[in-house]
Amino acid sequence: METAVILIECPDCKGIIAKVSDFLFKNGANIIQSDQYSTDPEGGTFFMRIEFYFDPKQLPADKLEKGFGALSSQIKAQWKIYYLSRKMRMGMLVSKEGHCLADILYRSLSGEINVEIPCVVSNHEDHRDYVERMGMKYHFVPASKQAKKDPEKEILRLVKKQTDFLVLARYMQILTANFLISYGKDIINIHHSFLPSFKGANPYKQAYNRGVKVIGATAHYVTENLDEGPIIEQIVEKVTHRDNVESLKRKGRNLEKVALANAVSAQIEHRVIRHKNKTVLFA
Amino acid sequence: METAVILIECPDCKGIIAKVSDFLFKNGANIIQSDQYSTDPEGGTFFMRIEFYFDPKQLPADKLEKGFGALSSQIKAQWKIYYLSRKMRMGMLVSKEGHCLADILYRSLSGEINVEIPCVVSNHEDHRDYVERMGMKYHFVPASKQAKKDPEKEILRLVKKQTDFLVLARYMQILTANFLISYGKDIINIHHSFLPSFKGANPYKQAYNRGVKVIGATAHYVTENLDEGPIIEQIVEKVTHRDNVESLKRKGRNLEKVALANAVSAQIEHRVIRHKNKTVLFA
Amino acid sequence: METAVILIECPDCKGIIAKVSDFLFKNGANIIQSDQYSTDPEGGTFFMRIEFYFDPKQLPADKLEKGFGALSSQIKAQWKIYYLSRKMRMGMLVSKEGHCLADILYRSLSGEINVEIPCVVSNHEDHRDYVERMGMKYHFVPASKQAKKDPEKEILRLVKKQTDFLVLARYMQILTANFLISYGKDIINIHHSFLPSFKGANPYKQAYNRGVKVIGATAHYVTENLDEGPIIEQIVEKVTHRDNVESLKRKGRNLEKVALANAVSAQIEHRVIRHKNKTVLFA
Amino acid sequence: METAVILIECPDCKGIIAKVSDFLFKNGANIIQSDQYSTDPEGGTFFMRIEFYFDPKQLPADKLEKGFGALSSQIKAQWKIYYLSRKMRMGMLVSKEGHCLADILYRSLSGEINVEIPCVVSNHEDHRDYVERMGMKYHFVPASKQAKKDPEKEILRLVKKQTDFLVLARYMQILTANFLISYGKDIINIHHSFLPSFKGANPYKQAYNRGVKVIGATAHYVTENLDEGPIIEQIVEKVTHRDNVESLKRKGRNLEKVALANAVSAQIEHRVIRHKNKTVLFA
Repeated sequence: METAVILIECPDCKGIIAKVSDFLFKNGANIIQSDQYSTDPEGGTFFMRIEFYFDPKQLPADKLEKGFGALSSQIKAQWKIYYLSRKMRMGMLVSKEGHCLADILYRSLSGEINVEIPCVVSNHEDHRDYVERMGMKYHFVPASKQAKKDPEKEILRLVKKQTDFLVLARYMQILTANFLISYGKDIINIHHSFLPSFKGANPYKQAYNRGVKVIGATAHYVTENLDEGPIIEQIVEKVTHRDNVESLKRKGRNLEKVALANAVSAQIEHRVIRHKNKTVLFA
Repeated sequence: METAVILIECPDCKGIIAKVSDFLFKNGANIIQSDQYSTDPEGGTFFMRIEFYFDPKQLPADKLEKGFGALSSQIKAQWKIYYLSRKMRMGMLVSKEGHCLADILYRSLSGEINVEIPCVVSNHEDHRDYVERMGMKYHFVPASKQAKKDPEKEILRLVKKQTDFLVLARYMQILTANFLISYGKDIINIHHSFLPSFKGANPYKQAYNRGVKVIGATAHYVTENLDEGPIIEQIVEKVTHRDNVESLKRKGRNLEKVALANAVSAQIEHRVIRHKNKTVLFA
Repeated sequence: METAVILIECPDCKGIIAKVSDFLFKNGANIIQSDQYSTDPEGGTFFMRIEFYFDPKQLPADKLEKGFGALSSQIKAQWKIYYLSRKMRMGMLVSKEGHCLADILYRSLSGEINVEIPCVVSNHEDHRDYVERMGMKYHFVPASKQAKKDPEKEILRLVKKQTDFLVLARYMQILTANFLISYGKDIINIHHSFLPSFKGANPYKQAYNRGVKVIGATAHYVTENLDEGPIIEQIVEKVTHRDNVESLKRKGRNLEKVALANAVSAQIEHRVIRHKNKTVLFA
Repeated sequence: METAVILIECPDCKGIIAKVSDFLFKNGANIIQSDQYSTDPEGGTFFMRIEFYFDPKQLPADKLEKGFGALSSQIKAQWKIYYLSRKMRMGMLVSKEGHCLADILYRSLSGEINVEIPCVVSNHEDHRDYVERMGMKYHFVPASKQAKKDPEKEILRLVKKQTDFLVLARYMQILTANFLISYGKDIINIHHSFLPSFKGANPYKQAYNRGVKVIGATAHYVTENLDEGPIIEQIVEKVTHRDNVESLKRKGRNLEKVALANAVSAQIEHRVIRHKNKTVLFA
């Protein structure tokens, strides 16, 4: 038995659920979980995630995909299929702050997050010792301002082929549009504020200066526009006037770790559909 | 066009979603929202909520229900259908504390909660003035310990026919098993603790004595076993050693109001399925 | 016995707590609660709130205030004293949305919030019936765009003398700098977003468009700069892609009610010190 | 300059704050932070935490302590003083689940938690590799049921002298009253439920069976009565009917890590006073 996830996005119309579930049913597949969402019941966009298992002997992958392709063109759907037997490969980029990196590494080591981490890349040497002790590969790629494009080329060389998506685990360099296009796959960033508040540099300083009573962390997809990509997860916590920038940072680290871990889980379980500048995040 | 909700519960088996959505599709109904949940993908219980609209001229209610009955017996399903054009009628029971009552009344007056409230019953006269100012009927039914069964008979007379469900909005009398059976419909209670902690009397006092750092409120269905019925909603908030019983009560009132309002919304939108001692609560 | 609260703000220096508590001790006053906060232990600003009771026969108010004045000039402190036997008077301004108004009115009626409400002012007639049923005065002051200053004059006439502070309970008109100066006392606004995100009009629409996973409400003091005044309280809640603008509004109302009620409680219990663009909020 | 924390507990009476702050002021010490709490303004118990710095040349520790002792006997106070230049030493006990251990170790390595960890003790070998990679000592002490007292003796030998307090980071053995007495210092446990709900074994299973909509984690001091000691911190999160025991465990791990880390921070910063079966937890 093989387990797979299909993600579908199409213009809403009558009978989509019926057609899709009927197709799987007739091919002997059994739906484990099915979730739908429609932006607007009257003519919006329809999103669907179906997790199902099937017998590859009865329904080989190519037959499944061909049948699904035919159905999809009928309902004008965009779709992707993921076979869960194939582990996702995640590249990690990190700068000075190591808490998100360490948290994700341990979750991966302990099996909580079922992901492969072929490489950790950093513009600092700070985490080499820790990462190598964890038995993983560490690549130091200095961020030279003079030759901005070179580091990105070096990173691209490291991650392009051997990763399915990237995580910026407190990576303090801005990736160029060029890099985003060349990499061409999802990049998840953890920003240390509840966006859209406090974009850019030093969000805890900004939060302190504004005197907010709640801080947060936001995991989102990276796009060309800094800190404006589709939000996957946000975690918040109450603070008081007693908090200074240091204590906001300390409290914030807990939020960042959980927001990023939740986003990574959603990513590798194929529970996220990006749509325009938002995400549909299935439970 | 008529809008309806179908709630389904049945043993899990292949193709249920396909059959149900196919049935609606073929009868010209259009699914607005569809949610499913299965306790266990391999042979558990399957739950489904479908909200759809249909043209009663093309598909009259009796034809819809007959067709659905046939389908249901095929998949051994229990099912209920609700037509949203029919407003639910909610009876309210209250004792001394009036905040949940006032909150629900205002939500109903302002149209936020689309429910009819034919009567408010209390074992005190305290809220008569307020309730009558709001233009609603207030019934005083004293709780005499000597004649325990009489008050329940009186309440039953008031609510049995003219309500679809009851809400105990801080009603401090215990309803007998007899009453529950005689009334025979859902009764929702708001308990002022995060159950199962602090059942019974004076939960804020119990919480204070235990020194907890979080308090809560729980909306649940009433069963024969005090504070042990299926939980619909729980809301919590952090507290500190500075809180005394009075401030816990004050903070707790906010939690009680929201937990109860959420539970009532879920009830009248038919988003809850009771299953054994739990609830499936569709979003 | 009389109970009073002293709020103090001064440059931090050695021995302030000793001096102040010594002064009260020697005059036979007994401290009920004492809270301090210093922006920076080395030469920042020091804030103190002391709640105490005293015998006015032994220590008449004028002697207390004179002694306190002398002490304060010694430590270069700004200070205010409030006698709790004197109820604060709160004016309320409201537009179309009535949930915050109704919530505050009931809290006041039930004694939870110990405040006097001499008047409710609105640029709509929508809430007259409700407010008058509650036994309070309702003033309709239309917001004519042609004569922007006139409504403010009318409001000022109503609130200037008979209120100690104002609450904008979802009042959708912008008060001019002129009005703020003429009124000259605190004005608390409830904004329906977690500021600084989504200032200005339609914050729930803005939140929906941005695709945030958390919404919030912010109670803050009104200043000349729209939605930029010192924040008193913020309450947040998780949302999902399933939420539309309507459901964000519905969920947001719960947050607005609690954030505003907490801010009003803090205000009437003299637990807030405004300092530059922030608040020190004692527990 | 030396920084110290004094924790005081005494019967409430007039002028305590004045006396204590006066004493420090006269001895040239400067208060960094001062917090008080009184269980009852009229004759309850008074708690105080003062963080201050002083010049050991002007005020040597023995003079400070002697002076403080004299003052304390005057106000019948119990007190403890901690010099922050002396790092606390924490022993860790763990069984199969390693997430709390790994989280605390990284916080300690990265300097977020300023504590020394002389040893990690476990009744399993599972974490040896990880702990030793982190450069710390790992002791395997098997939990033999036949010789229950022996493991405790072995543990005692390891931790008695070289630790100031113990943390049970998901340690699944029950420590005997004998052990508690022999160790004689604080022991902090993380229990994976919001106590008092779901004491004892398998709290996530219990939570799942009860159908709660909120789960939690509780850090508390260990006493003779299982899971009934004074609560230091509780963290909670909403869950739904879709959560099974596995997902509750996964979500719960985030709560356990944060609750335990917060409790450990409070412990090493001397912000906790145990009083009867509760804690006073200064911010």
